[in-house]
Amino acid sequence: MGVVIPLEESKNKQASIKPLMDLTKPGMERVNQLILSKAGSNVQMIPEVANHLISSGGKRLRPMLTLASAAMFGYEGNSDVKLATSVEFLHTATLLHDDVVDESDLRRGKSTARMIWGNQASVLVGDFLLGQAFRMMVDVGSLDALDVLSTAASVIAEGEVLQLSVAKNMETTEDDYLSVIRAKTAALFAAAAEVGPIIAEADKAGRNALKSYGMNLGLAFQLVDDALDYGGKSADLGKNVGDDFREGKITLPVILAYRRGTQAERAFWREAIEGGQSDDAHLEKALGLITKYGGLTDTVARALHYGTIASDALAPLPDTEWKSALMDVIDFCVARVN
Amino acid sequence: MGVVIPLEESKNKQASIKPLMDLTKPGMERVNQLILSKAGSNVQMIPEVANHLISSGGKRLRPMLTLASAAMFGYEGNSDVKLATSVEFLHTATLLHDDVVDESDLRRGKSTARMIWGNQASVLVGDFLLGQAFRMMVDVGSLDALDVLSTAASVIAEGEVLQLSVAKNMETTEDDYLSVIRAKTAALFAAAAEVGPIIAEADKAGRNALKSYGMNLGLAFQLVDDALDYGGKSADLGKNVGDDFREGKITLPVILAYRRGTQAERAFWREAIEGGQSDDAHLEKALGLITKYGGLTDTVARALHYGTIASDALAPLPDTEWKSALMDVIDFCVARVN
Repeated sequence: MGVVIPLEESKNKQASIKPLMDLTKPGMERVNQLILSKAGSNVQMIPEVANHLISSGGKRLRPMLTLASAAMFGYEGNSDVKLATSVEFLHTATLLHDDVVDESDLRRGKSTARMIWGNQASVLVGDFLLGQAFRMMVDVGSLDALDVLSTAASVIAEGEVLQLSVAKNMETTEDDYLSVIRAKTAALFAAAAEVGPIIAEADKAGRNALKSYGMNLGLAFQLVDDALDYGGKSADLGKNVGDDFREGKITLPVILAYRRGTQAERAFWREAIEGGQSDDAHLEKALGLITKYGGLTDTVARALHYGTIASDALAPLPDTEWKSALMDVIDFCVARVN
Repeated sequence: MGVVIPLEESKNKQASIKPLMDLTKPGMERVNQLILSKAGSNVQMIPEVANHLISSGGKRLRPMLTLASAAMFGYEGNSDVKLATSVEFLHTATLLHDDVVDESDLRRGKSTARMIWGNQASVLVGDFLLGQAFRMMVDVGSLDALDVLSTAASVIAEGEVLQLSVAKNMETTEDDYLSVIRAKTAALFAAAAEVGPIIAEADKAGRNALKSYGMNLGLAFQLVDDALDYGGKSADLGKNVGDDFREGKITLPVILAYRRGTQAERAFWREAIEGGQSDDAHLEKALGLITKYGGLTDTVARALHYGTIASDALAPLPDTEWKSALMDVIDFCVARVN
């Protein structure tokens, strides 16, 4: 499985998220404390399940976006930490439910909560975290921020159902796929970035800039994620190459290889994805076809396209270290190898 | 299985919810329209799954409580309908997730959504309805109402996890059981009734009265529900006698029969509930033991106890047709046969 994604920028991967991590370090320490506190409960199973996922080494990119997008507009109160924690809880709840829906065994190289505590606990602890997320937002008291985040919560769920209904259907177009990732991933990035200017009482232009930045960053992020599923290594990625293939998920590398392929190759894809023929031999052949038709390079090209839009969205804003850090995150998302 | 609950009041069952239904009829028509509209989506599966449950003939008691508790304090705007719909969506989302968690095949005599569309769709459409519920609350714009309802959402999920962690444990006490039903059922009744006086800008005493009414009504409601599981008929109830028994759920009739039984009888309960020996012969024996120890009559006695507290909570409020209708609902909940 010698397929790798030709990412010229990958040498920058450590450098490019570091400025954001450094700048948000004090805020993220408070976020991490609030996460532990709000995932607490007298019902012992709740912190167990929640902390399993929370402590499993995600980068916490989304709450960092909230902190940075508030700081960029001079925000100095406590609401940024609460909203950042809400954003991370919405994300964590989605992951808990996703693992049930996808019947996943591994996430970030660890057993999923559902494998340890069962589907039941994963569904219910996800619901608890959603409830806690809303309580924190209510505590902040900004109806605009509540509007943005509750809309995102609906849109994410809608995107997940859409993904379910296009699953295993090889006639899915790139547009269908984009609708799914816009809803299930990019909407939360957009909301995470938009609530910063909202609590900082920035003007409409500032809100729109950060919302557009978040949305397009999220699209780029998910495109690269879907490319990595056919190009990364299990140890790096915390998931196995070909997980999406085995689950019959239709992502852009597959869509491109299918639509650009011969009749016989399209028959192979239908047999594999719709017919569930997804053993190692089929995966090997799929990887070959994706490479043959530029499925990975062109998926990354799409990511670069959205990354550029994200960058241009921020461009008119004043040059600060925060803006510079957010710009660097775009490169990180497009170039990351894990 | 000739066990029936000796409810003297059951002759009133039609009469006692009718005043509330009549008074809330215009409001409930608007609630029903809003339900259909907010359960809509371009993603076809969402209204399909949502409407399956929404149209399955529940009484919609919770939204009626919200409408009545607002009207009681002279409320005349539109927010009551939005909050009532939010309450029903929170409830519907919980049912969708519950059926997945309990692996239920039937609800109200119909196949559950998860049997038709799968667990995946049930989890995700539940999430969508939760998101829509919060969007409607945000649209109302009352931070107090948002606080009450988002707290209820957390508490419900916490109660469900607690239920999971006491499941199949015969040492569960009546207090443990009460903690579960207070969280998973009564908290939403309390919230549904408390948001009425909130949007009507009633005083603190009014809020507290309705909250206490809702909480105790919810406890009575769930106690009777749990009694009916060992005493109703499938056709009436839309579920099968002994569903809780087969799922190993510990409800009050079982707790009482276990704690009051002989050593041999306690061994039987452990074998049945913890050991999963729940065939028809075991159910027959369980029903006999519950009857022998007054498990159903005493469960209903507890319901009457909470019903009295609910009634006394409302007592000091001005005598209106709304108050009278809410009083009648207490009798309905305690006396209902289905």
